[in-house]
Amino acid sequence: MTRRIPEATLPEFAAANGLIHRRELLVGGLMASVSPVLGAQQPPSLPSWTLAPGRPMSGYGMPSEWRKNVQRGFTLPPGRPGTGASRTPLHLLEGTITPNGLHFERHHNGVPDIDPAQHQLLVHGLVDRPLTFTLDDLLRYPLQSHIRFIECAGNSGGGAAPAPTQADAGTLHGLVSCAQWTGVPLSVLLQEAGIKPAASWVIAEGADAAALSRSIPLSKCLDDAMIALYQNGEAVRPEQGFPMRLLLPGFQGNTNIKWLRRLRLTDKPANTKDETSKYSELMPDGRARQFMLEMGPKSVILKPSYGMNMQGRGFYEISGIAWSGAGRIRRVEISADGGRTWAEALIEGPVLPKALTRFRLAWRWDGSPLRLLSRATDEAGGTQPPRSEWIKQYAPGQGYHYNAIQAWDVDAAGKVTNAYT
Amino acid sequence: MTRRIPEATLPEFAAANGLIHRRELLVGGLMASVSPVLGAQQPPSLPSWTLAPGRPMSGYGMPSEWRKNVQRGFTLPPGRPGTGASRTPLHLLEGTITPNGLHFERHHNGVPDIDPAQHQLLVHGLVDRPLTFTLDDLLRYPLQSHIRFIECAGNSGGGAAPAPTQADAGTLHGLVSCAQWTGVPLSVLLQEAGIKPAASWVIAEGADAAALSRSIPLSKCLDDAMIALYQNGEAVRPEQGFPMRLLLPGFQGNTNIKWLRRLRLTDKPANTKDETSKYSELMPDGRARQFMLEMGPKSVILKPSYGMNMQGRGFYEISGIAWSGAGRIRRVEISADGGRTWAEALIEGPVLPKALTRFRLAWRWDGSPLRLLSRATDEAGGTQPPRSEWIKQYAPGQGYHYNAIQAWDVDAAGKVTNAYT
Repeated sequence: MTRRIPEATLPEFAAANGLIHRRELLVGGLMASVSPVLGAQQPPSLPSWTLAPGRPMSGYGMPSEWRKNVQRGFTLPPGRPGTGASRTPLHLLEGTITPNGLHFERHHNGVPDIDPAQHQLLVHGLVDRPLTFTLDDLLRYPLQSHIRFIECAGNSGGGAAPAPTQADAGTLHGLVSCAQWTGVPLSVLLQEAGIKPAASWVIAEGADAAALSRSIPLSKCLDDAMIALYQNGEAVRPEQGFPMRLLLPGFQGNTNIKWLRRLRLTDKPANTKDETSKYSELMPDGRARQFMLEMGPKSVILKPSYGMNMQGRGFYEISGIAWSGAGRIRRVEISADGGRTWAEALIEGPVLPKALTRFRLAWRWDGSPLRLLSRATDEAGGTQPPRSEWIKQYAPGQGYHYNAIQAWDVDAAGKVTNAYT
Repeated sequence: MTRRIPEATLPEFAAANGLIHRRELLVGGLMASVSPVLGAQQPPSLPSWTLAPGRPMSGYGMPSEWRKNVQRGFTLPPGRPGTGASRTPLHLLEGTITPNGLHFERHHNGVPDIDPAQHQLLVHGLVDRPLTFTLDDLLRYPLQSHIRFIECAGNSGGGAAPAPTQADAGTLHGLVSCAQWTGVPLSVLLQEAGIKPAASWVIAEGADAAALSRSIPLSKCLDDAMIALYQNGEAVRPEQGFPMRLLLPGFQGNTNIKWLRRLRLTDKPANTKDETSKYSELMPDGRARQFMLEMGPKSVILKPSYGMNMQGRGFYEISGIAWSGAGRIRRVEISADGGRTWAEALIEGPVLPKALTRFRLAWRWDGSPLRLLSRATDEAGGTQPPRSEWIKQYAPGQGYHYNAIQAWDVDAAGKVTNAYT
């Protein structure tokens, strides 16, 4: 139901400061940005790469050398070489699938190099029959493939700082990635082991040198949890848990235990170091909230964003990603006047539950300074709060589960900076 | 609507030789394949990789060293280092997304190394305003993302040979891959240039040293054609056309011109070397058919397949991929008795038009020799012919557009071989 905008005709605007109705498709309005070669009937002179044979085939391809700047960003914390995070450069990517080489990392004692033939997964505790599974065992089971995001609980946590950090969207929000995961539904394995009536939690432990351990409600393990063996078609990457990881769609990244080594069924959470010293949220009254595992609705505009400045007044596409641990994204709204008026963005299908969702909206920027916001709403009705409301929920500086509305200021020169609402 | 199969109960069979109804979910039946550690309440002894910190983070990740055999397969034709093909190892992958490093390649004079700042796309010929577009120009346009397969017209062409080649599924059928492509709808650019009434074809040319050129019906260019700039989120890979390629969903791979340099609108096809010396089909009467561009409905079972032998009698998942240039896959049927009886497979959603689609079916193999077949039907009603019918359409040895039913023979020892129906 798109309408093409004839040249010299103004599009239908949906909100202040140039936000165009989502059913309008830009044609003609971008003419100013292309180079007419009126009268030319021959292409420009042949470039050097047309004049000599190119390089041969390769067994495993890599990105162009001209794009070697598209990397995960990371800093190694002093004295702790094995712990830290690297971030997906969201602002340099498109669509919703994260290429495997750029999926964010979060390690607590480095990436183990696991011989898959020596790795075993133990299911024990409150079960009728403790079982171990090798990778080959798991590959015999019926598999499932699902496109799902993983987001670190600490993603965007810098938003809790008193002043907005001036950094690109990948640095600010790049602890989220999305892939097609293939594996065995965990419910199948648990039922083979036989779940004792007293069981209500599952303690999942990794084979890394941190032995990262988290307590997961049994109900989640019987819902959409998976032992993931493949990531975007190929074996799960080492930094994502090769040869197998726990996938808990919509739950905070840290619970999606990588290099998964055992699952112990219990009648209560284990209160491991990884869920007491970290990954709990300090509340205003000084108590810590535990096991708030589902990630909230969230969105971020990537075009434009910090470091991706405007190139003069004219037509642009605003675009970004939205996601929610509660299910599908139902709606993304964009404001170009700091939240006074809102226009609904186009959402690209297929809209999948607990997956990154791309939104787009045409925009005519007239060169005025303004503030851009995006606000996602999920199918459960959850939506993003302004930062001023989000911050009241927690003790000062608490940064887990940050999902406040992201604001970008555009100045008269077209420079884009991070801002607080 | 799946029913769990209680232990010691036979599942509901849907066709001969152990094909299980698709609503049955295997539980319990696989018990024989796992290792019970009855009584164990502690995991096995700590592996070496748990006892020392792992490796640090990386800017761009790679697959595990334990999976370095998962490569594209290729042979360089003698004396022609720049031409040839490399194939996706389909039998070693899962799901439907092909990781970028393993997307099949087909080059006619090697992979050019293009400086994106120096590259231009010219739109000329029967247009009102010839236009050139730089990559930065195109990035200003509204983009679209779609998951789509690309298949070489010559994929599976060895099936036209008198005897079945004994090789793995990637070698036989690996000139097909699937990715999320993001780019500018071609219709938008053509309308900006202004299409003269006489135009009915578009001659697309690459900037490689083969200057690969194909004639495309204008109607396709105004339908779902795209100038693709991103592949699974990151810039299109060099071997896929960096910095830009033509994407013609469902059309034979060769027309999806890589390193796209110009589009010339004409009133007739150009009969380029790339569509006369190759990529036309020799018919039984000695004439060549031209411009049969849409790829037909097709499927291949990957589990089991050649080289992926059975591990003794018992329960297995049969799984594979199906696709069609005409749109969505509507149905995949599997036979375990050489085509006498058929069972409908589970199709994993979301089922997208012109995208690889994964099918799965549970199976109990009793150790008998048998023949496995898969047959895909698309939403246009098209289906795969037996090889004996497919072969009658063409002159002997003609191998383009091969989409006959793939057969795998399983012998009593569980060895899987390529067979002809």
